[in-house]
Amino acid sequence: MAEKMRAVVKTEPGPGAALITVEVPQIGPKDVLVRVRATSICGSDLHIYNWDPWAEGRVKPPLIMGHEFAGEVVALGEEVETLKVGDSVSAETHIVCGVCYQCRTGQSHVCRDYSIIGVDRSGSFAEYVALPAENAWLNPPDLPLEVASIQEPFGNAVHAAFSYPLTGQRVLVTGCGPIGLMAIGIAKAAGAAAVHASEVIPYRLDLARRMKADLAFDATKVDVAEEVWAATDGQGVDLLLEMSGHPSAIHQGLKALRNGGHAVLLGIPSRPLEIDLAEEIIFKGVTVYGIVGRLMYETWYRIRALLSSGAVDVSPIITHRLPLEDFEKGMELMRLGQCGKVVLFP
Amino acid sequence: MAEKMRAVVKTEPGPGAALITVEVPQIGPKDVLVRVRATSICGSDLHIYNWDPWAEGRVKPPLIMGHEFAGEVVALGEEVETLKVGDSVSAETHIVCGVCYQCRTGQSHVCRDYSIIGVDRSGSFAEYVALPAENAWLNPPDLPLEVASIQEPFGNAVHAAFSYPLTGQRVLVTGCGPIGLMAIGIAKAAGAAAVHASEVIPYRLDLARRMKADLAFDATKVDVAEEVWAATDGQGVDLLLEMSGHPSAIHQGLKALRNGGHAVLLGIPSRPLEIDLAEEIIFKGVTVYGIVGRLMYETWYRIRALLSSGAVDVSPIITHRLPLEDFEKGMELMRLGQCGKVVLFP
Amino acid sequence: MAEKMRAVVKTEPGPGAALITVEVPQIGPKDVLVRVRATSICGSDLHIYNWDPWAEGRVKPPLIMGHEFAGEVVALGEEVETLKVGDSVSAETHIVCGVCYQCRTGQSHVCRDYSIIGVDRSGSFAEYVALPAENAWLNPPDLPLEVASIQEPFGNAVHAAFSYPLTGQRVLVTGCGPIGLMAIGIAKAAGAAAVHASEVIPYRLDLARRMKADLAFDATKVDVAEEVWAATDGQGVDLLLEMSGHPSAIHQGLKALRNGGHAVLLGIPSRPLEIDLAEEIIFKGVTVYGIVGRLMYETWYRIRALLSSGAVDVSPIITHRLPLEDFEKGMELMRLGQCGKVVLFP
Amino acid sequence: MAEKMRAVVKTEPGPGAALITVEVPQIGPKDVLVRVRATSICGSDLHIYNWDPWAEGRVKPPLIMGHEFAGEVVALGEEVETLKVGDSVSAETHIVCGVCYQCRTGQSHVCRDYSIIGVDRSGSFAEYVALPAENAWLNPPDLPLEVASIQEPFGNAVHAAFSYPLTGQRVLVTGCGPIGLMAIGIAKAAGAAAVHASEVIPYRLDLARRMKADLAFDATKVDVAEEVWAATDGQGVDLLLEMSGHPSAIHQGLKALRNGGHAVLLGIPSRPLEIDLAEEIIFKGVTVYGIVGRLMYETWYRIRALLSSGAVDVSPIITHRLPLEDFEKGMELMRLGQCGKVVLFP
Repeated sequence: MAEKMRAVVKTEPGPGAALITVEVPQIGPKDVLVRVRATSICGSDLHIYNWDPWAEGRVKPPLIMGHEFAGEVVALGEEVETLKVGDSVSAETHIVCGVCYQCRTGQSHVCRDYSIIGVDRSGSFAEYVALPAENAWLNPPDLPLEVASIQEPFGNAVHAAFSYPLTGQRVLVTGCGPIGLMAIGIAKAAGAAAVHASEVIPYRLDLARRMKADLAFDATKVDVAEEVWAATDGQGVDLLLEMSGHPSAIHQGLKALRNGGHAVLLGIPSRPLEIDLAEEIIFKGVTVYGIVGRLMYETWYRIRALLSSGAVDVSPIITHRLPLEDFEKGMELMRLGQCGKVVLFP
Repeated sequence: MAEKMRAVVKTEPGPGAALITVEVPQIGPKDVLVRVRATSICGSDLHIYNWDPWAEGRVKPPLIMGHEFAGEVVALGEEVETLKVGDSVSAETHIVCGVCYQCRTGQSHVCRDYSIIGVDRSGSFAEYVALPAENAWLNPPDLPLEVASIQEPFGNAVHAAFSYPLTGQRVLVTGCGPIGLMAIGIAKAAGAAAVHASEVIPYRLDLARRMKADLAFDATKVDVAEEVWAATDGQGVDLLLEMSGHPSAIHQGLKALRNGGHAVLLGIPSRPLEIDLAEEIIFKGVTVYGIVGRLMYETWYRIRALLSSGAVDVSPIITHRLPLEDFEKGMELMRLGQCGKVVLFP
Repeated sequence: MAEKMRAVVKTEPGPGAALITVEVPQIGPKDVLVRVRATSICGSDLHIYNWDPWAEGRVKPPLIMGHEFAGEVVALGEEVETLKVGDSVSAETHIVCGVCYQCRTGQSHVCRDYSIIGVDRSGSFAEYVALPAENAWLNPPDLPLEVASIQEPFGNAVHAAFSYPLTGQRVLVTGCGPIGLMAIGIAKAAGAAAVHASEVIPYRLDLARRMKADLAFDATKVDVAEEVWAATDGQGVDLLLEMSGHPSAIHQGLKALRNGGHAVLLGIPSRPLEIDLAEEIIFKGVTVYGIVGRLMYETWYRIRALLSSGAVDVSPIITHRLPLEDFEKGMELMRLGQCGKVVLFP
Repeated sequence: MAEKMRAVVKTEPGPGAALITVEVPQIGPKDVLVRVRATSICGSDLHIYNWDPWAEGRVKPPLIMGHEFAGEVVALGEEVETLKVGDSVSAETHIVCGVCYQCRTGQSHVCRDYSIIGVDRSGSFAEYVALPAENAWLNPPDLPLEVASIQEPFGNAVHAAFSYPLTGQRVLVTGCGPIGLMAIGIAKAAGAAAVHASEVIPYRLDLARRMKADLAFDATKVDVAEEVWAATDGQGVDLLLEMSGHPSAIHQGLKALRNGGHAVLLGIPSRPLEIDLAEEIIFKGVTVYGIVGRLMYETWYRIRALLSSGAVDVSPIITHRLPLEDFEKGMELMRLGQCGKVVLFP
């Protein structure tokens, strides 16, 4: 095996990143080493690349970036029994403590002491990545690499969409970035009565329609809540999947929700937000649920079911394929919102 | 309005029924009178027709038979405000007391004192039927009458199928009578990872395949549980929808269920049954749920969503259309299992 | 029966109310007339009395105020079959439409078109009150009148406390007005592992201790969240019952909640509030549920169970008993927070 | 440390067991060795002692018996970081595979490949027992040893009792062996509206009353279901906790259940049983849930909360304390049902 590899590294505090040559990661007795075949760009990668306040507070350079990937197991730690060299894997990127109350009661997704690949430890924008075998998810052999790579964010969408009953219910997805687009496809596959969507970037509105949103509203042009109430016979939606983190989308989404409805929040607002708890939540008897990560590993079995059976076709979402060395181009596409998912090939 | 009408009547205890002329039903202040446009035959109609022990213990002739129907409102009781003459309606056939603990806590489907149209009071195998306005369900104008007629049993299937999460899960439907066939379609529409089915009558196995069951097993030829375990990578199914009431199907279904799975029982066994609670339920940590009726009226909103959106296509299930006067031919088809749903047109 | 009665009436827009003589209310065919024996003051009565912006926007004088009460049925509408003259009753005060989606699916507490006794129609600060028989709740004969009177707000506390599992779990109640105090008693009766409370008025902190809160924190003196984390071995609470509506209590409560915990919001903030959705809800995987009213009538059966069995002793909460004519004194006690529940006797 | 120890060993197939001297168990890198301070007798120990058909099919002598215990950690495997020498621990006795679907989705209690201490590997009727550190549960320092020893069966009762909402609900416990008695105490601590019990042995009926069952019925003398319906105002119970495994108790329990109620089955019938699925489950819309083990480790946190807070006082249940060498006397007490829990002290 090679001792050196190419990797996209945040070499020091501040914007940008560099493709440099570094050591191939070492593995411990419970780890596997994976040859990265495809690795996609997440919104959080862009935050780190841009070095925004969140990144500045969290990331300690030097750091190999990236966490969404698919690849091939090339080496096993001595205690690993569940995988073998040659297996195709992706990763649950949250490496949890295993001993906190949450981990001990089936709620590892809110572990009190977890680290994230590509944020807190070496990531996947590289030729190789090391991770605990426990976090390596075996991919069906025939799953295309680029699809396998985006399973992690797809899992965020699954976690969100399956938080409350969906079949035969009305759904609104606010924000049509990649996870919002995935949520549209998942809700349609689950037999939602209607899946409406809102977004501000025309490129992404078009993708929402390609994912078969029943109605896709341009939030710069119409009052989304009003349109949704009209489109649902004055009933409102049963389920809001908030994927944007934008204040106006959050307010529109809550306004579009029926009394007794459920709001699932996944999009991360960049700062605190004024909420009228009385009118938007309490008097309506609404339930709000915050999404972090994926249910470990309940969500992953559902991912496999939805992608392997072809129930959800994510191909419209994968809009760009680039060699790893063009990562800066990928970051720029993400910054402009002129893409769905950008997949890099090392 | 006419004062007399034709109706299929169980005129006296014993097998058979007669098409005779009777009075058009009277309505009270909270009732509506409906001109029946289509009315389908349920298994329980066959029990009454055949005068089996259950029917003998329950039914008091003379009785106008039938309860599944679609029709047009032709008269309103004076207190009725929610409907108007000309509306197309079907019926929730359980007329509940409204004051028991169950009714007062959102569990009317297990009301302690309910009567059923066509079993305990005049039914729909007739030109007209009377029912409380509360039980009349407004149909979308463009819903075909024969589809509107079978919404009641479709609701049984919806109640059963939506008792536990379904999307991305493995399902086994045992028994492919009309409700089992509907359940296959519903589970597919809800994005189940796989929907397998078992049945003993070739005609119905063929319908199961037309409803797009992933695998349809002839229980007279193969060991269903073994086949299911093989077809699910040795995992078993997450959800059993038992629609037959046959002992061997129940045992096969429970055997096909994974540890921690859910069994939903809708088929009615004709007599008590030996069950190995230890091996079939307790040691496996299984949940069993008995289905009666439909959630009032949660299930009906889901029916509307699934049928109006076209998510479930029930057309393969409606195999026979007959004039009301041919009801005996319909009963014979039912007896032989050589049909899906038989719809009568008065 | 008398034709005239004394009643506390908001006679015109603006602060205050008057005890005047008015007509005894008429009843319709589905109503009952109740002789009020005890009627307690709710926070919303104080809002109406003070004529705050909410009251100004909602209430149309003249209005007989009050909605919490216990009394005796003295007359029945002609269609009423479920009650008889002499029955002791209290009231579910939300009079719902019965036909909206919410009402038809067991969610009447979030009915889209309901009116409230004493807010939208004549209330119970009077010798007589009329209401639909459906809303009259039969009291056990031996339930003290003053306890029977406060069942409605007790039901708010039950609805809140039973929204998520409680037994063997850690709970924080923020705000120790009457409903907060009731919630403490309910959580203790339900076997919570610990019930902590916070409040700013010493009088109410003392009541919290009398309701057997494990720890009652003076939020003017300590950092409640810090104290709670220390008191729960660094685990945080599983369940927050927010009963104050005060921004700092809401933030402290959310901070005291463990990852994956549940926040139940009942206290009504007087205005919109800045919330850090990312840190307070999303990254913690928290669920938030807004409480309005009581589950109809699930909650009422639980009220009966908890009060009749003596599981919850509300006597410390009922701090003041006044004749109806002293209602202004009661309002003043409420304004100062120098009371638990104030019960008026007409 | 000693190399030899005394232990109760099933030395060969057939009834009985012998107290003999054996090697102290070896520990692997992830194990702990525990000095047993108290170890209680479970019904399954009696099955093994008596060598009934289940034992004959499962147990491979020689085997050190016993699995309920409390003790002190005396040695640690090299990889153990979560415990230290001197810690007081008990054990989750199911040693699970960690890799099956159930284990990977928070359902380890129905792991497809688990072994049980004292059944499939060396047990705790001995001076020392070895187990994976993951299965060792840290006891609060002040928990009495005999109480700490019975936490494992107490956890079965917690798992059963907390399967469905309990507070303010009516409960029937059929079978007042130790786990039934614990369930009574747990249901009372959780604020059940009423907890009724049935049993056939007067000694245990007396214990049921000492655990504060509201009514304890002698099933040899009265019709339990009839008594329960009478005692619940003709409503039936909301929750059945079936702890006996006896056919008549199961039928009586199901008959005592209200429509829409929940039946939790923990008692293991010795053979298949005739059930009238139509009348006992389906037409009543009942849910049945089979209990195996404890939720790992959700249940254990609830155990800690209920026992540490003193919410449940199990002292009436611990009726006999014997030195280990008197294990045969303990077995005889169990056989006769003339005991609650028998605790052995090595």
